[in-house]
Amino acid sequence: MTSTDSAQQPTDAPAKAPAKDPWDLPDVSGLVVGVLGGTGPQGKGLAYRLARAGQKVIIGSRAAERAQAAADELGHGIEGHDNAETARRSDLVIVAVPWEGHGKTLESLREELAGKLVVDCVNPLGFDKKGAYALKPQEGSAAEQAAALLPDSRVTAAFHHLSAVLLQDPEIAEIDTDVMVLGEVRADVEIVQALAGRIPGMRGVFAGRLRNAHQVESLVANLISVNRRYKAHAGLRVTDV
Amino acid sequence: MTSTDSAQQPTDAPAKAPAKDPWDLPDVSGLVVGVLGGTGPQGKGLAYRLARAGQKVIIGSRAAERAQAAADELGHGIEGHDNAETARRSDLVIVAVPWEGHGKTLESLREELAGKLVVDCVNPLGFDKKGAYALKPQEGSAAEQAAALLPDSRVTAAFHHLSAVLLQDPEIAEIDTDVMVLGEVRADVEIVQALAGRIPGMRGVFAGRLRNAHQVESLVANLISVNRRYKAHAGLRVTDV
Repeated sequence: MTSTDSAQQPTDAPAKAPAKDPWDLPDVSGLVVGVLGGTGPQGKGLAYRLARAGQKVIIGSRAAERAQAAADELGHGIEGHDNAETARRSDLVIVAVPWEGHGKTLESLREELAGKLVVDCVNPLGFDKKGAYALKPQEGSAAEQAAALLPDSRVTAAFHHLSAVLLQDPEIAEIDTDVMVLGEVRADVEIVQALAGRIPGMRGVFAGRLRNAHQVESLVANLISVNRRYKAHAGLRVTDV
Repeated sequence: MTSTDSAQQPTDAPAKAPAKDPWDLPDVSGLVVGVLGGTGPQGKGLAYRLARAGQKVIIGSRAAERAQAAADELGHGIEGHDNAETARRSDLVIVAVPWEGHGKTLESLREELAGKLVVDCVNPLGFDKKGAYALKPQEGSAAEQAAALLPDSRVTAAFHHLSAVLLQDPEIAEIDTDVMVLGEVRADVEIVQALAGRIPGMRGVFAGRLRNAHQVESLVANLISVNRRYKAHAGLRVTDV
């Protein structure tokens, strides 16, 4: 057991310039958000929630016509294009492809994703008779794999712990969960936090650097166990924050 | 992104015998709880909270006199003994030793811990200038190391995400967090869930098998980042459960 309090400031520390308010987040309402793998349940659910919150969203898929069909189904001004076109047209690109296609897809989009803010939400998991378990990517995590494959992009990680069922259910107005956001550059992380905060019920919480992404990604295996035991669509709240 | 909903039952599934209520937990008020490493901040905080909730608690340490001193300081009927004596006298033994001493301590207590319910709450972490990061034990996790070293014990994992500062502060009446409990045997897991539930504010939630303990243990690195950014003592709530 390790104390989580190691960063606590001594109460008699000398006065310093006030730290930036961690909840002072940028206005991201004008950003175009692309969702690679936007025809899968999670990508589609996330595209729907963001568009419903007023964000301009483009769904990407390997086949443009499948992306277009998903976009038409969801409405809210969502467009559909192939992954490359989606990446080109977007300011911020959410990577929601299956883990199996993760590396290959990103490698093929290196040019289109250059300069973009990339938000990886892929959970490398295996499944067997006992349920889900974590897979450990060679790079450490899916997010670190993305960072390695996309040296000219700004890579962050977020949106791992969402229930596709809840995201896609139009009857549900609020999603009761925090979104852990990881990244190396504070300004990028804050954009993703702000984006998460646009979805009613959600809050984006900074949760560390990319080297600590693996446990956030693989915690989905635990949430699957929770969902099975409690017949739930579990999310996570960070308390005292 | 992998759906967390994979366990969802089809709504037209044939009627089955009603599943056991996952919140129907045993009465654990009569169990004697030992805390190995009970003189460290987390072990001491946990011992204090459990004793304050009415549990009989024994603090264990390598040196009996240090354990005794910590017990005297905390009150609430807490006893202090060396680790071996603590294990012998307890029904349920919480392992809260530093990761560095984890394997060696457990190996030396194999006999005393035989037949006992062992609750591992150790987080294998490294620290450098950039903060905390996960260490990957050869066995997969601290809990799996415990299971490997204690073949005659019933090993579970829980209590990873608690703030020692909050645990030890007598002014704080409730700790606002869920406790993820992992294990292979449902009856054992439920005892630990019930024990967590004795502390006001806490709730023990089943969160998977021991093979999924690593991400729960190492998520503490993320909570340390949260605490630093938000000047908080973060905990976690599982929503929709």
